[in-house]
Amino acid sequence: MLKREKDELERAKQTANVLAEALPWINSWEGKTVVVKYGGSAMEDPELRRQVVADVVLMRRVGMRIVLVHGGGKAISALMKALDLPVEFVDGLRVTTPEAMDAVQMALVGKVNQMLVSAVDQYGDLGVGISGADGRTFVTSALDDVHGRVGKVERVNTHLVESMLDDGYIPVVAGVGWGEDGSYNINADVAASELAIALHADKLIYLSDVDGLYRDFDDESSLVSSMEATEVHELVDSGTLERGMIPKVTAAAEALDAGVTHVHFLNGTFPHSLLLEVFTDAGIGTMFYKED
Amino acid sequence: MLKREKDELERAKQTANVLAEALPWINSWEGKTVVVKYGGSAMEDPELRRQVVADVVLMRRVGMRIVLVHGGGKAISALMKALDLPVEFVDGLRVTTPEAMDAVQMALVGKVNQMLVSAVDQYGDLGVGISGADGRTFVTSALDDVHGRVGKVERVNTHLVESMLDDGYIPVVAGVGWGEDGSYNINADVAASELAIALHADKLIYLSDVDGLYRDFDDESSLVSSMEATEVHELVDSGTLERGMIPKVTAAAEALDAGVTHVHFLNGTFPHSLLLEVFTDAGIGTMFYKED
Amino acid sequence: MLKREKDELERAKQTANVLAEALPWINSWEGKTVVVKYGGSAMEDPELRRQVVADVVLMRRVGMRIVLVHGGGKAISALMKALDLPVEFVDGLRVTTPEAMDAVQMALVGKVNQMLVSAVDQYGDLGVGISGADGRTFVTSALDDVHGRVGKVERVNTHLVESMLDDGYIPVVAGVGWGEDGSYNINADVAASELAIALHADKLIYLSDVDGLYRDFDDESSLVSSMEATEVHELVDSGTLERGMIPKVTAAAEALDAGVTHVHFLNGTFPHSLLLEVFTDAGIGTMFYKED
Amino acid sequence: MLKREKDELERAKQTANVLAEALPWINSWEGKTVVVKYGGSAMEDPELRRQVVADVVLMRRVGMRIVLVHGGGKAISALMKALDLPVEFVDGLRVTTPEAMDAVQMALVGKVNQMLVSAVDQYGDLGVGISGADGRTFVTSALDDVHGRVGKVERVNTHLVESMLDDGYIPVVAGVGWGEDGSYNINADVAASELAIALHADKLIYLSDVDGLYRDFDDESSLVSSMEATEVHELVDSGTLERGMIPKVTAAAEALDAGVTHVHFLNGTFPHSLLLEVFTDAGIGTMFYKED
Amino acid sequence: MLKREKDELERAKQTANVLAEALPWINSWEGKTVVVKYGGSAMEDPELRRQVVADVVLMRRVGMRIVLVHGGGKAISALMKALDLPVEFVDGLRVTTPEAMDAVQMALVGKVNQMLVSAVDQYGDLGVGISGADGRTFVTSALDDVHGRVGKVERVNTHLVESMLDDGYIPVVAGVGWGEDGSYNINADVAASELAIALHADKLIYLSDVDGLYRDFDDESSLVSSMEATEVHELVDSGTLERGMIPKVTAAAEALDAGVTHVHFLNGTFPHSLLLEVFTDAGIGTMFYKED
Amino acid sequence: MLKREKDELERAKQTANVLAEALPWINSWEGKTVVVKYGGSAMEDPELRRQVVADVVLMRRVGMRIVLVHGGGKAISALMKALDLPVEFVDGLRVTTPEAMDAVQMALVGKVNQMLVSAVDQYGDLGVGISGADGRTFVTSALDDVHGRVGKVERVNTHLVESMLDDGYIPVVAGVGWGEDGSYNINADVAASELAIALHADKLIYLSDVDGLYRDFDDESSLVSSMEATEVHELVDSGTLERGMIPKVTAAAEALDAGVTHVHFLNGTFPHSLLLEVFTDAGIGTMFYKED
Repeated sequence: MLKREKDELERAKQTANVLAEALPWINSWEGKTVVVKYGGSAMEDPELRRQVVADVVLMRRVGMRIVLVHGGGKAISALMKALDLPVEFVDGLRVTTPEAMDAVQMALVGKVNQMLVSAVDQYGDLGVGISGADGRTFVTSALDDVHGRVGKVERVNTHLVESMLDDGYIPVVAGVGWGEDGSYNINADVAASELAIALHADKLIYLSDVDGLYRDFDDESSLVSSMEATEVHELVDSGTLERGMIPKVTAAAEALDAGVTHVHFLNGTFPHSLLLEVFTDAGIGTMFYKED
Repeated sequence: MLKREKDELERAKQTANVLAEALPWINSWEGKTVVVKYGGSAMEDPELRRQVVADVVLMRRVGMRIVLVHGGGKAISALMKALDLPVEFVDGLRVTTPEAMDAVQMALVGKVNQMLVSAVDQYGDLGVGISGADGRTFVTSALDDVHGRVGKVERVNTHLVESMLDDGYIPVVAGVGWGEDGSYNINADVAASELAIALHADKLIYLSDVDGLYRDFDDESSLVSSMEATEVHELVDSGTLERGMIPKVTAAAEALDAGVTHVHFLNGTFPHSLLLEVFTDAGIGTMFYKED
Repeated sequence: MLKREKDELERAKQTANVLAEALPWINSWEGKTVVVKYGGSAMEDPELRRQVVADVVLMRRVGMRIVLVHGGGKAISALMKALDLPVEFVDGLRVTTPEAMDAVQMALVGKVNQMLVSAVDQYGDLGVGISGADGRTFVTSALDDVHGRVGKVERVNTHLVESMLDDGYIPVVAGVGWGEDGSYNINADVAASELAIALHADKLIYLSDVDGLYRDFDDESSLVSSMEATEVHELVDSGTLERGMIPKVTAAAEALDAGVTHVHFLNGTFPHSLLLEVFTDAGIGTMFYKED
Repeated sequence: MLKREKDELERAKQTANVLAEALPWINSWEGKTVVVKYGGSAMEDPELRRQVVADVVLMRRVGMRIVLVHGGGKAISALMKALDLPVEFVDGLRVTTPEAMDAVQMALVGKVNQMLVSAVDQYGDLGVGISGADGRTFVTSALDDVHGRVGKVERVNTHLVESMLDDGYIPVVAGVGWGEDGSYNINADVAASELAIALHADKLIYLSDVDGLYRDFDDESSLVSSMEATEVHELVDSGTLERGMIPKVTAAAEALDAGVTHVHFLNGTFPHSLLLEVFTDAGIGTMFYKED
Repeated sequence: MLKREKDELERAKQTANVLAEALPWINSWEGKTVVVKYGGSAMEDPELRRQVVADVVLMRRVGMRIVLVHGGGKAISALMKALDLPVEFVDGLRVTTPEAMDAVQMALVGKVNQMLVSAVDQYGDLGVGISGADGRTFVTSALDDVHGRVGKVERVNTHLVESMLDDGYIPVVAGVGWGEDGSYNINADVAASELAIALHADKLIYLSDVDGLYRDFDDESSLVSSMEATEVHELVDSGTLERGMIPKVTAAAEALDAGVTHVHFLNGTFPHSLLLEVFTDAGIGTMFYKED
Repeated sequence: MLKREKDELERAKQTANVLAEALPWINSWEGKTVVVKYGGSAMEDPELRRQVVADVVLMRRVGMRIVLVHGGGKAISALMKALDLPVEFVDGLRVTTPEAMDAVQMALVGKVNQMLVSAVDQYGDLGVGISGADGRTFVTSALDDVHGRVGKVERVNTHLVESMLDDGYIPVVAGVGWGEDGSYNINADVAASELAIALHADKLIYLSDVDGLYRDFDDESSLVSSMEATEVHELVDSGTLERGMIPKVTAAAEALDAGVTHVHFLNGTFPHSLLLEVFTDAGIGTMFYKED
C-alpha cells in the first residue's frame, strides 16, 4: 500500500469512527420536528450558506422533519435602495409602504427564498419555497398604524407545510403573510416562532451572526449558556436587553410557553454550528429550556 | 311581494336556470386536467385578473384539476428599467444576464406569482405558488450561447404539482427553471406546454390579449376558428406566422402531438372567456385539435 | 358575425356571468352535507323530477355531499288500490298490514327509488338506491299497536351511506326500515331527519308541493319566512299547526336540536328551488335555524 | 356428569371434529370470489331460504367474497296477475311491456331483493341490495324487437359491487338493467354469468330446483356429474338440450371461456347443498370445468 | 347410487349440517382478539399438537385475531440436562443462571417456537415466531435477587404483534423478554396475560393438561365450572390454591381486572377443546368472568 | 474557555466536519436496499459485534433499507459438541441429521439470532428476528441424499421482510428454511444471495473475517480489488478458488446476474468496514460489479 493510499484510508477510518459516534444523537432525533430561523451574514456568504444548507439536508436525511424560515433584511434594503425607495425603521421594525412591500416580496420570495430552495435542490428534489400566501400559511393583519404593511400573524395553517414534510420535502419559508387586503411583511423571528408552535416542533433554532445571547452586550464574557423559561421572561421584562434582541427573545419565550421545549441561539458563521448543536455535546450558543 | 323583491326573485330564477343549464358541461369536465397559460393585460388589469382568478377557482370547485402558468414580461421589464438594467431581445427572447435573471425571478416569483396566489386565496386556502426550483419541477439548462440565462426544459418533475392537485390546491406556476448552475428564465408558453404534456392534461389554454390566431395578422377576418394538428404543423413550417406567435404555436403543436387533445387561444380581456370556452358552446377564440 | 351567432354569444356571456356570480355560494358549500327529503307532485311530474334530479347532481358536482330521501305515498296508494288492498290512515299515518307492507316496499323500493336512481344515472355512474335493510341503515321496531308495520327508527347505521358519499355516489334512500321481525314502513320526513342527524348534516331540506310553512294554513299571507328553533318548539306545542305538517315540523325541530343548523321547507314545483336556496340570496320558502 | 350432559358433550365433540375436518377446504377458498345465482323454490320456501342465506353468510365469514344474484319469476308472475297484466313468454323469455317492466322491478327489486337482504341482515349489517341501476352496474339495451323491455347487457360496472365486497358486505343483485331509455328486464342466469366474468370470479354456482343437468331430461340416470368446456359447447350446439336449460348452459359456457374455471348446477332444495359443494368432497350436482 | 357413495354423501351432509350450526358462533367471534397460552403435553404430543394448531388456524380463518403464547418447560429441562446444567426451582420458578438463560432461549425460541410456527405453516404463509426481543415486544427487568435471569414485564410493545395480526399472520410468541442487560426468562402464563391486556383481547385461554381449576386438587368433583372475578380474587387470597396454579390464576385475575372479559382453563389433551369452547355451548373447563 | 473545553469543542467541530462530508454518500443511498451477510469472528467478538450492529442501525437511520442475514457455524458446532452430536462436513457442507438440525435451529434461531436482535434493540424497537419458517420466507427442500437436512431454497416469500422494512424495522434473518417435511439448514451465504435477489437489493455485502477475495489464497498481494461479473464467472469455472470461497463466490455471481449491481466482500473485524464501504471512497475489500 502506498503512502497516499494509507493516508486516504486513515482519513476514511476517522470518518467512519465519527459517523459511528453520531449514532446515539441521530437515533434520538428521529422523527422530531425542528424549525430553523436562518438569517444574517451566515446566509449571505455563499460558502457559509452552502454549509448551512448541507447541514439542513443532512438533518432531513437522518430522519428529522426540518423547516427553514428565513429573513432577508439586507436583500430588501439593497433592492429598496436600487429602486430609490426610502428605508426607515421605527422601533426596530421596517416602515413598509405598499411600494416597499412590493420590494420586500420581490427580495424575500423572489430572490432569497429561491436562492435557498435552489441550494437545497443541489441534493435532490427536496426544496419547496413557501410564502405565507401559499396555502394561506400565515393569515395576517396590520400590526399597527405606524408601520404600514408590517403584519401580525392571526392564524397559522400548517396543512401545506405538514404535507410537504410528510412527502419528504424541506419547506423553505419566507416571512411574508397573506391578508385580505394584500400581503404583509412579518418579522421572520416571529414567523419562525409561530410556525414552531403551530407545528408542535421539538426545537426552534435561531441561526444568526452572533454567538448567542449576552446579558450585557458590551461584555463578551456575559454570554448566556443556558436559561430556564422563567428567567427568560424576567429578562424580557427587565428592559436590559439590547433592543434588536427583544423580538427574538420574546418570540422564543412564547414558543417555550406554548410547548416547544428547547430554543437555541447559534452563530451560523461558525462552521456546522447546527450539526454541533444537534449531533455533539459541545455547548455552543445559548439554550432556553422549559423545566417540567 | 314588493316590486323590488319580485325583481330580485326574477334575477335569482335566471341564475338558477343558467346553473342548471351548465350541468352537462360541468359533468363532462369532472376530474379533467387543464393547464391555463395566463399573461398579458388580462393579467395586469386588476378587475380582469379578479375575474380570471374567480373563473379558475370555479373550474376547480366543479371538479377540474387546474394549473395556472403565468408569464410576466411587463413586470420584468418594469423592474429591469427601475434597476437600470438594459432590456434586449434577440429572436423574440429576452437576453438574460445574471443580473437580469435576478430581476426576472424577483418580478416573476416575488411579485406576479405572489399576486396571483393572493388573488386565488380570496376564495380559501387554495393557491400555492410554484417556481421551477420548488421540487425541481423544471430541470433546465442553457438554451444557447446568445441568450444568457434563458433555459430549455430538460425534465419536468410532476410530483409536487400533482401532490398539490390531489390535495385540492390550485398550483400557480412561474416560468423559472432550476439548473445545476443556477436559475433559468423559461418562456412561459413553452413551460405551460411542457407541464401540460407531463401531466397528461386534457386541455391547454393560452389566455392572452388577442382574440386567437390570425392567418394574416393584418386581416381581422382571418381569425382561425379551429384547426387540425396536421394543418398546425404546416402553418408553423410555412413561415407566414407572425414572429411573436411562433413559440406559442410551436409549443401548442408539440402538446397536441404528445397527447393533449385540445389547445385553445382565448382573449383573456373578454369577460369570463374561460367559462365561455369550458361551460358553453359559444365558439370563441381558436382551437387546435388532434383527429383520432 | 351573423345575427344568430351574436345572439348565441350574448346568451353564452350571460351564462358565464351567472356562473361567475355563483362562485361565492359554491365556495361556501364545498364539502358540506345536505339531506334533501323529496316528495309530492314535484316528484311525480316527469319534467319537475328531471329538474330536481339535475339540481341535485349539480350540487354534488360542485362538492356538496348530498343525500336524497324520498317518500311515495301516491305510488303506494295506487299500487294498493290496483291490488285491492284497503287504504286507511289513522292520525295521518297509513295503517300497514303485512300485505300493505309488501305493497309499500314494492312501490317505494321497486318503483319510486329505482325511478329516481335511474334519473340520477342520466348524469353518470352516480345513483345508488338504499333502503333501510341495506347495511341495516335503519334498524326499526313497531311504532305502536294500531298502525301495524309502521315503524320507529331505533338506530341509524351511517356506514353504508357515508361509504357511498366518500366514493362520490348520490345515495337515494327509501323510507323502509329493517326489523328483526321484518320490514317496517317509516315516515319519510322522519327518516330524513334521523339520517341528517346521524350524518351530522349541515342542512336538511324538505322539498314538497307547498311554498313553506303557514302559521294559518288558510291565510296565504301567513307564510313564515324564517323562525328560530325556540319558536319552532312553541309552534309545535301550540297545537295550531295543520295536522299534516306536525310530523315534518316535529322532525325538523329534532334535527335543529341535534345540531343540524338549518332546516328548509321549499316548494319543489317551483323551478330550481334547490338551486335558488343554495346558490342565490333569494328568500324563498321557510327556514328554521338555531341561534348559537 | 348426567346422561343429558354427556349427550350434549358428545354432540359438541362431533361438531368440533367436523369443523376441524373442514379446515383444508376453508383454507383453500380464502379470498376467492364466488357468484351464486339463486332462484326457484329453494328461494320461495322460507325454511330453505333461511338455510341458503345462512350458508352464504358462513361462506363470507370464512373469507370468501360472495355475491348473490337472484331471479324471481314466480313473484313477477304473481304480481302481474294481481295487476291484471297479461303474462306471455316467447322463446322462453317474458314479453315485457312497459307496464310489465314496472311489475318486474317492483317484484324483483321491491320484494324478492329486499326479502333476501333482510334475511342476510339476520346475521349483521351484511346485506346490500343492488339493481343494475345502482352505480349503473348493468348498462343494458333492448334485446330485440319482440320482447319489449327485455335487455341484453352492454357493459358491467363492477366498482359498486367490488367496493361492497371490500367493505365486507354481501351484495344481493337483482336482474334489472339500466338503459338510457329506462329499465330493462335481464335474464338472471345471464346476469350472474356476466357479473362472474366481470369480477373474474373463481366459481359460478347455479342454485335451482333440479339436481343438475340431464343429458336426457326424462331419464333420471342421465344426470351429468362433470363435463369439460369443449363438451359443454358441443352439447349446446347439439340442440338436444331441454329448452329451459339453454340460456343457463350457454351462459355457463361463456363464463368458462372467459376464465371462470368452474361452473356448478346444484339443487338448492337439498339441505346445505352450497356447503356440500364447497366444504366437502361429496360429488353432488353437475360441474362444468375448463381444462388448462 | 352405490352403498359406498350413499355413506359418503350421508357423512358430507352431516358435515354441512354441523358447519351451518356453527354460524352463530362464528358470527359472534368475527374480529375478536383471543390470546391462547399453550403448553404441557398437549403441545408435546405430535398428534395433539397437530390438532391444536389446526384449531387455531381455523379460528383465524373464520375471522378471529388469534395469538399463540407458548411455554416449553420440558424442552428447557431436557436441553439443560443434556448440557449438564443444574435444574433448580425456587417458589415454582426456575432459577436461571446466564448459562441456563442461553438454554432457555435455545429451547424456547430455537426449538419449541420454530416447531409451532412450522406446524402453522402447514396451512399457508401464516405463522410468525416472535420473542420478546423482536420489536422489543416485552421490555423486562430482573424479578428479584434469587431467580437470576427470571424477568418481570415492564412494558409491552404491541406494534409488531398488531401489525402481524393486521397482515393476517398468526403470531407465535415465546416467553422471553428483552432487557437492557440481556434476555430474561418470563413465565409464559404471565406473558400471555400481559399480552392479552395490552392487546385489549376479548378472551384469554389457558390450554394445558388439566381439565380446569379444582378447588381441592385431590377431589376430582371440585372442578370449578365458572367463577366471577371477585371470587377469583378471594380464592387467590385464601391460600388454598395448589402452588403450581398460583401464577396462572393470579395472571388470570389481573387480566379480568384489566378488561379481558373471559379467561378460560381448558384441557388441551381433550380433542378440539378450543373449538368446543368457542363454537359450541358445551360447558368444558373452567371459566372466569367479570360481571358488568 | 478552559483548555478542556477547547479540546472538546475541537473534537465536536471535527465531528461536524465529518458528518457534513458524509452527506453526498448518505444522499445517494437514500431508500436503497442492502443485504448484509454477517458471520465469522466479526460476529462472535462482543465489541466487534457492537460496532457492526451500530453501523447497521446508522445505515437504517440515514434511510437505507437494510437486512442482516447471519450464519453461526461456531455456535452450532459448539452446541453439537456439548450435546455429544458428531460434527461432520462433506464438500464443505455440514452433514445434518435430524438431531443435528435441532441443534442448528437452537443455535442459529435461539441463540445467534436472538443475540443480534437484542443488540439491535439497544437502539430502539428496531430488530425483528426472522427464520425461514416465519411467513414461510424460505420454502426449501432437501439438497441431496448425502447431507441430510441441508436444504436448497425453492422459493423466497418476501412479504414478511418487506412489511418489516416498510415499518422501519431491521430484519435479522437466520439461514433456516421451512420444508413440508420439517426444517432445513441453508447455507447463509446462499440465503443472503437468494434474499437479495428476491428483494431486488441494490447491494449485497459479505462481511466475514478475511480482507476480501484472493486469487491465490497463499499470496496476500493477490487480493482482488474489483472484478467484473464476466471475470467472476471465469474465476468460478477455473477451479482455482479456495474451496471455502466457492459457495460464496458462486452465490455472488448469481446475485450479479439477477440484477444486484454490486457485491462486496469486506473484513468485519476491521472497525466500521461497513461505513467505510458505504460512506467513504476508501477502497477496501473486494467488489464485484456488473457492467451495463
